[in-house]
Amino acid sequence: MEKFYLEQLTIIGVGLIGGSVATRLKRNSSVGKVVGVGRSHKNMAYALEAGLIDEIATDIRSAVANASMVLVAVPVKQVESVLHEIKLSTNAHAIITDVGSTKGDFTRMVEKVIPERAGFVVPGHPIAGSEKAGAQAADENLFVGKNVVLCPLSQTRASALSAVRELWQSCGAHVSTMSEDKHDKIFSAVSHLPHVVSYALVEMMNRRTDSEELFDFAAGGFRDFSRIAGSSSEMWVDICRANNEHIVDDVESFIASLETIRELLKSGNYGALQRIFGAAAAARNNWASKQ
Amino acid sequence: MEKFYLEQLTIIGVGLIGGSVATRLKRNSSVGKVVGVGRSHKNMAYALEAGLIDEIATDIRSAVANASMVLVAVPVKQVESVLHEIKLSTNAHAIITDVGSTKGDFTRMVEKVIPERAGFVVPGHPIAGSEKAGAQAADENLFVGKNVVLCPLSQTRASALSAVRELWQSCGAHVSTMSEDKHDKIFSAVSHLPHVVSYALVEMMNRRTDSEELFDFAAGGFRDFSRIAGSSSEMWVDICRANNEHIVDDVESFIASLETIRELLKSGNYGALQRIFGAAAAARNNWASKQ
Repeated sequence: MEKFYLEQLTIIGVGLIGGSVATRLKRNSSVGKVVGVGRSHKNMAYALEAGLIDEIATDIRSAVANASMVLVAVPVKQVESVLHEIKLSTNAHAIITDVGSTKGDFTRMVEKVIPERAGFVVPGHPIAGSEKAGAQAADENLFVGKNVVLCPLSQTRASALSAVRELWQSCGAHVSTMSEDKHDKIFSAVSHLPHVVSYALVEMMNRRTDSEELFDFAAGGFRDFSRIAGSSSEMWVDICRANNEHIVDDVESFIASLETIRELLKSGNYGALQRIFGAAAAARNNWASKQ
Repeated sequence: MEKFYLEQLTIIGVGLIGGSVATRLKRNSSVGKVVGVGRSHKNMAYALEAGLIDEIATDIRSAVANASMVLVAVPVKQVESVLHEIKLSTNAHAIITDVGSTKGDFTRMVEKVIPERAGFVVPGHPIAGSEKAGAQAADENLFVGKNVVLCPLSQTRASALSAVRELWQSCGAHVSTMSEDKHDKIFSAVSHLPHVVSYALVEMMNRRTDSEELFDFAAGGFRDFSRIAGSSSEMWVDICRANNEHIVDDVESFIASLETIRELLKSGNYGALQRIFGAAAAARNNWASKQ
């Protein structure tokens, strides 16, 4: 296989994800030039000084002009306006990929805003993150051993998909492809629902009149369980908006599961409860043993 | 204050908790003799050899005969039969304390089996644990900085309560007292409900036809959230039995919280959703900053 190489990577939003891709590709000598564009002058100045990027572009249109690939790594709320600006660029053959946590909404935005470029668009989702944010948190090993899911559109060209796959493999990631709907269904269950549940549980505790005592006696189990409730609530509301239907389905299924457990508890059917808890413990420990 | 000292501590069940108390008191020179009794010969032989205990008793009756204090540290299912055996001992003035996660059930068993000794009984719950079990996991620092809750009965003598408080303070713990019902209400919310929810979530994932893919893509958030679903399902079914009413109440409240969120999601009321997620994130991060 020929070594992966991009003449110019343009990163829109040089934060944790964009910065980590940049530093990795530079270490691998897999990129000629990295052009960055972003809203925070301070963050962009840091990215330039630290050598994550080679050039700061003043606007998206010019940043895209000579790009071989464009990595859109901005909060989901800004994606649609970014696509409108990309559309203004005369460079119609730059490969466009993103890093959002939901893929159906990105696909719909592409089909709405830049359908004529769909052949060059590869929606993507790297399953990696950190509590840290911004270019200063960039880490060339952030994606090593992590999953990246790509959800090509029906129009996406094979060459564009290959290039984005190689980008992520070059970062050390395992790359899978699936439809955007399957992606959103899977991540609703394994990530979005757990976040909603964790927020709901902590908020319920916080609302009680004895909340001060509850938090005083909360210990290790609570620490683990509630960690994700400390995540950015704005980001998670955006995810709930973007993946609304699957999350509603999963919340409903989960309410049904809890109703079953409530009835087993009320009727004292501890044998059936043991089967549920035992199946969960076995599945969890089996999963953990493979990590 | 006079230094805390026990002529003889008898430990029924020399596991992680009992063994850790024993090794701490010995290091502190706060105990004359530690007598242990337990079902596993191998575990008891280890406890003796490692110096956690000074003597293995052949039965509970004789183990209690000369005890200043009896620490009942067996699984909740064995507690009632242990109390029946303690009743057979002629030593009517040994202080009796336990370490179970639920306190209403222990209190009811005491009132049923050994009401005549209630003045010497101090129900207790050290909020500390580990994934490890058995005497080999004993750690003299297990309780340092941890909470221990004591739930004296109305008949409990002040001198008995003081002695058990001093035992735990001697282990480095913060000791609080409250009614057994208040204890069970607090721990239903901060520990028992989160376990039920975590088991329910993992079991629901495991039951889906796409469970294999779900587990393949589960990442960090799932790891934290599901950790407690790896706990002993037998122990947690016992806790659900022992604290049934409070747990049923909390599961019902939690279902109501999720129903509210489901309606906000369905109606697209993201402002209200943001208030719930934001309150949870603030409460969680405030809690975490104090730990």
